[in-house]
Amino acid sequence: MATETFDKQKTIDLRQKHVGPSCKVFFSHDPIKIVRARGQYMYNEKDEKYLDCINNVAHVGHCHPDVVEAGTKQMELLNTNSRFLHDNLVLYAQRLQATLPEKLSVCYFVNSGSEANDLALRLAWQYTGHKDIITLENAYHGHVSSLIDISPYKFHQMAGAEASQHVHVALSPDIYRGKYREDHPDPATAYAENVKDVIEQAHEKGRKIAAFIAESLQSCGGQVIPPVGYFQKVAQHVRNAGGIFIADEVQVGFGRVGTHFWGFQLQGEDFVPDIVTMGKPIGNGHPMSCVITTREVAESFMSSGMEYFNTFGGNPVSCAIGLAVLDVIEKEDLQGNALHVGGYLTQLLDELKKRHPLVGDVRGRGLFIGLELVRNRDKRTPATAEAQDVIYRLKEQRILLSADGPHRNVLKFKPPMCFTREDAELAVDTIDQILTDLEKALGLHMHEAVISENGHSKRKEHSEENGLALDHTSNDSSHKHTGTIPHSKKTNKRLRT
Amino acid sequence: MATETFDKQKTIDLRQKHVGPSCKVFFSHDPIKIVRARGQYMYNEKDEKYLDCINNVAHVGHCHPDVVEAGTKQMELLNTNSRFLHDNLVLYAQRLQATLPEKLSVCYFVNSGSEANDLALRLAWQYTGHKDIITLENAYHGHVSSLIDISPYKFHQMAGAEASQHVHVALSPDIYRGKYREDHPDPATAYAENVKDVIEQAHEKGRKIAAFIAESLQSCGGQVIPPVGYFQKVAQHVRNAGGIFIADEVQVGFGRVGTHFWGFQLQGEDFVPDIVTMGKPIGNGHPMSCVITTREVAESFMSSGMEYFNTFGGNPVSCAIGLAVLDVIEKEDLQGNALHVGGYLTQLLDELKKRHPLVGDVRGRGLFIGLELVRNRDKRTPATAEAQDVIYRLKEQRILLSADGPHRNVLKFKPPMCFTREDAELAVDTIDQILTDLEKALGLHMHEAVISENGHSKRKEHSEENGLALDHTSNDSSHKHTGTIPHSKKTNKRLRT
Repeated sequence: MATETFDKQKTIDLRQKHVGPSCKVFFSHDPIKIVRARGQYMYNEKDEKYLDCINNVAHVGHCHPDVVEAGTKQMELLNTNSRFLHDNLVLYAQRLQATLPEKLSVCYFVNSGSEANDLALRLAWQYTGHKDIITLENAYHGHVSSLIDISPYKFHQMAGAEASQHVHVALSPDIYRGKYREDHPDPATAYAENVKDVIEQAHEKGRKIAAFIAESLQSCGGQVIPPVGYFQKVAQHVRNAGGIFIADEVQVGFGRVGTHFWGFQLQGEDFVPDIVTMGKPIGNGHPMSCVITTREVAESFMSSGMEYFNTFGGNPVSCAIGLAVLDVIEKEDLQGNALHVGGYLTQLLDELKKRHPLVGDVRGRGLFIGLELVRNRDKRTPATAEAQDVIYRLKEQRILLSADGPHRNVLKFKPPMCFTREDAELAVDTIDQILTDLEKALGLHMHEAVISENGHSKRKEHSEENGLALDHTSNDSSHKHTGTIPHSKKTNKRLRT
Repeated sequence: MATETFDKQKTIDLRQKHVGPSCKVFFSHDPIKIVRARGQYMYNEKDEKYLDCINNVAHVGHCHPDVVEAGTKQMELLNTNSRFLHDNLVLYAQRLQATLPEKLSVCYFVNSGSEANDLALRLAWQYTGHKDIITLENAYHGHVSSLIDISPYKFHQMAGAEASQHVHVALSPDIYRGKYREDHPDPATAYAENVKDVIEQAHEKGRKIAAFIAESLQSCGGQVIPPVGYFQKVAQHVRNAGGIFIADEVQVGFGRVGTHFWGFQLQGEDFVPDIVTMGKPIGNGHPMSCVITTREVAESFMSSGMEYFNTFGGNPVSCAIGLAVLDVIEKEDLQGNALHVGGYLTQLLDELKKRHPLVGDVRGRGLFIGLELVRNRDKRTPATAEAQDVIYRLKEQRILLSADGPHRNVLKFKPPMCFTREDAELAVDTIDQILTDLEKALGLHMHEAVISENGHSKRKEHSEENGLALDHTSNDSSHKHTGTIPHSKKTNKRLRT
């Protein structure tokens, strides 16, 4: 067991004294102190174990020994900048390229998803000679100033904030809560037409489009899965306007979606972005990131005459770690695991939907899944407080889950990729029980909810079960666990399938 | 000896294929492949040893075992984000704070100097409600788009580039080559008055100053040491205009200047910046960085309502490494070493100046030293080609040095802080010989150069000596070693003092 330097209260006090108050902790009224982690588990200062359903950064599992070993060996040998030749850099570039369409062949190594997306903008500006960026509603692309500009998820947090002149916000292609829904005959075309409209409106103002940027699947935006064919149609409109397509894979890349290595590949083989940005899972926690683009874009960027130098980007240690992560994904077939366990988890959540009126939607690909809670299925009223309650109650049961999206009512699953069927069952059983309690307290009944759905209501007996629980307080540190809803000791024991 | 995966040519070929062509290597016509490093030495694929005079990132020495051990131990235990409480984060914040004036008490942990400077701008914009930034001629503050805007060193590389509307460029406080020189009675006041003029001109256009940003000692700008008192006077003018002062310590912090831990402290105890940004040496190569500011600025930033979250920033591994770097600096008295060895190196270079007409100026603090080469001491004509020649010839002797500044004629010393007197002697002896050869070929004689100086000309016999050598091709990859100047086999053997 790892030891503490300070007791928890002292840690909190020092943090309040010396760490920026804008930097929030999870569960602000009772934050968690974590001292060690392994695989899909994290342990607090009392050595209590939490099931981690949220840390997509610890992609191949917390503290994976192969990754630690690769980092250690290279740290002992050499860690310097990319102005010296080194095999790790070129090996890693080659390996990353091999996961992508051939056209995406030129890499830039940087330190974070934010650095990657900022560089993607610089590449687009230089290549197109245009300035304007189209982004999606609720999008989040990073914390540096150029990215706050294109992140409605962030700039909407500021009172009276509006998009900058060069930023145009298109509809989120959300077929559950967006303008065009699952009953629309062709939401892909309809949402892409909206991008076309946005382009035309920009052109009317004399502005020119440099790029469209979107996460391949929106994460902070609420686990949104764009309809297949949407990216192809958007890319056509954007390219017709002289712009390029940036696929942000920072949250969803590296096999998480199960069927494919990259999220954008869910759209079909006929879709190739002009730039792909990577981040979070790339180094299993090590600060590193990459931008990959075409030879044409890269040559254009060079033609500006400005060198690109990134002090830490592509150093031999980062590349050794990146290579080890790729090796582990392959060796342990984590993409296959994401497909199978993710599919199973989705199936379990779909079953919850049949029994729980609070569940409005279950959507996801692989181990990237959203469970959207609603107070009313017809009106799809966001169940924001209930979602917060669920994650706080899960935390009490030592399961770490977060709620996000514009209404903070979407429970987000994005666990380490070594997540198992048993982990999925434990999480779903615990949620099942919490929802049962919540619905009882709220007086919600399934028959009311299912009138407009084709699901069927069924209830089960509850019995005692060991649970774990946790959350992500998103951007509101003032959130408090209301504690108004009684918490049953009983939990649901589903028959294992 | 470390082994290669590819032979050197294959590494070069793969790099050309898969790494952005804007990412330059040192010595582009014959780059160096480095496979391991230790202390102040780097080794190529043939296990040939280079003396490293340029890698200020490998601050406490390449691959310092204490730093490697700290990183390894923490990687094995936990590497996660700062939304969980962790002692390393608060311990490290506390330790960094202790090196600074008390007022600078609130930390934000990020991944690179670029992320740090971008965040500093965001803090300044929010705190002041103003938008405009004053930067110095030849300044370089990072590679993200907001920083290219305030980096004349970068944006001047683009044909026809001008400063953005919100960016104002003040004179570099360079008393050797700038507007006010060493013969000026009060260059600190004169250069600060220029900042005041810049502010007034901005005000006339209806613009408002958010911040003045400067490296505490300009690095890429040519190893410029601002006159004492300059920062105090600038800060007064900037604060009178409602702006704040950002000291960029990315290149020069952590004891490098010898007498003090931070470069800005050279200005005197009465000077306290509003924001200090850190980077390169902070993690001895590990990608990490920090912004430290006052409680007032931090509270204002929070009041915007926008959370600040940085995925990798402040993770337990980065903080463990940062703590280990501070420990080594202290345990090995590297600040003291920088003072003594740096002083000795400056003294040796001063001696070179007495004997070599090509040496126009020697300036520096601790192990941050510039040797400015000129073709004519009266006119101070930059000896750009000669400086490039020196670094290429040093490379042949396996000594790594770079040339930078607006004219790329300033040889920059910023070695790992474990640099020794013997290393200094070796570097200076080798430079001595190279300058002798160059001057001979150019027909330069000391008596011509010293007419306007008080130095005295003396020449010495040369004898055989083992040399090392190296460089940094800066931003011009098209540079080729001209090879026009004959390279003598003889080197200078100075009497050791």
